[in-house]
Amino acid sequence: MAEKEISQTVISRLPRYFRYLGELKDKGVERVSSQELSRLMTVTASQIRQDFNNFGGFGQQGYGYNVAYLYHEIGKILGLDQPHHLIIIGAGNLGQALANYMNFERRGFLFKGIFDHDPSLYGKEVRGLAVQPMENMERFIEEHEIDIAVLTIPKAGAVAAAELLVKSGIKAIWNFAHVDLNVPDRIQVENVHLTDSLMKLSYNINRQQDGGRQESRCSDEEDG
Amino acid sequence: MAEKEISQTVISRLPRYFRYLGELKDKGVERVSSQELSRLMTVTASQIRQDFNNFGGFGQQGYGYNVAYLYHEIGKILGLDQPHHLIIIGAGNLGQALANYMNFERRGFLFKGIFDHDPSLYGKEVRGLAVQPMENMERFIEEHEIDIAVLTIPKAGAVAAAELLVKSGIKAIWNFAHVDLNVPDRIQVENVHLTDSLMKLSYNINRQQDGGRQESRCSDEEDG
Repeated sequence: MAEKEISQTVISRLPRYFRYLGELKDKGVERVSSQELSRLMTVTASQIRQDFNNFGGFGQQGYGYNVAYLYHEIGKILGLDQPHHLIIIGAGNLGQALANYMNFERRGFLFKGIFDHDPSLYGKEVRGLAVQPMENMERFIEEHEIDIAVLTIPKAGAVAAAELLVKSGIKAIWNFAHVDLNVPDRIQVENVHLTDSLMKLSYNINRQQDGGRQESRCSDEEDG
Repeated sequence: MAEKEISQTVISRLPRYFRYLGELKDKGVERVSSQELSRLMTVTASQIRQDFNNFGGFGQQGYGYNVAYLYHEIGKILGLDQPHHLIIIGAGNLGQALANYMNFERRGFLFKGIFDHDPSLYGKEVRGLAVQPMENMERFIEEHEIDIAVLTIPKAGAVAAAELLVKSGIKAIWNFAHVDLNVPDRIQVENVHLTDSLMKLSYNINRQQDGGRQESRCSDEEDG
């Protein structure tokens, strides 16, 4: 499983499987067939089997999948069996919103600190943590074993902040700034370009009169 | 151009072209070749030509593309030549953050109202607009010709809210709730599942030791 390179499109579907399996588990469902999952998730059963085969298949389809086991295994593949330490760069509205979004902590994404360029924000409490100056960031990342930096500052400052994060040995950047970051290969980047997402919606509204709605999911884009 | 169905993956790349062309335009660049764009955007020149050919090609590559023209045309294709009226459902941190994100208005996405289930929030001002009860929503959508609803309430209430939005004749839902909405085909849905995005980042951090960084972009996922 760790050996072969798995496409990002397959990876993009894993959180959705994880979500549906979690709901089945919470309902006390013990086993689920790829056909049942297929109906629930409106993807083909063969797609589900193909996706799962990337990770060894997770047991016989004949008897269906063991829900608790599959949920646990996919969680492990997603790295949710160990906590991640996050800092947020940018104490503006979006940074504060993300800091206050409890759901992340339930998944083991622990918010450890928040930083900003703006001195007027220093000391301001966000989710019980005081906003710190950027100068403290490098040391903080090392001392608190921060692996993920959430970048919510405007485009203008984002590139410089990313460079500082690289210097600080960050492992991953969750980038909300509307700019593509140019960082070394060792650093994982996941972009959430909200404006792009909204423009895509705008396109599909215009296309609507030609019929055919296009649902698109941030976490499972595909060609076709 | 309106005739053939264009893949959502191509559409997903348009906002990024639009962004880079806007930056070139702001720098006073008049013409750009697919090779230059390719270098800037780190996509292949042939991909760029293929993408543009979906829309008629936008002029001869020999002389390069006219930046201002291409920027304008892609903006038109994205429906940015006409304003969109938005309401936000959910006056929590994320709803307020999105309401306060100016960048959307610059693109013609105009924030007209905000609604919530929670009576303690009624009347609270967000970006100069008072939070309204959900009961007002249907009428408001009709009176203010709202075409996009931004759904930022928790999963639990999101499905019911989506049903109400459908009843209210909304054209599109920008869904931040961590649930897949089941709405009629005529209604456009763009999902931003932040938790899924974070899980994908977590996966790629874990994969990092096997080498090979995977950059993924919310707005241009592709297999491979």
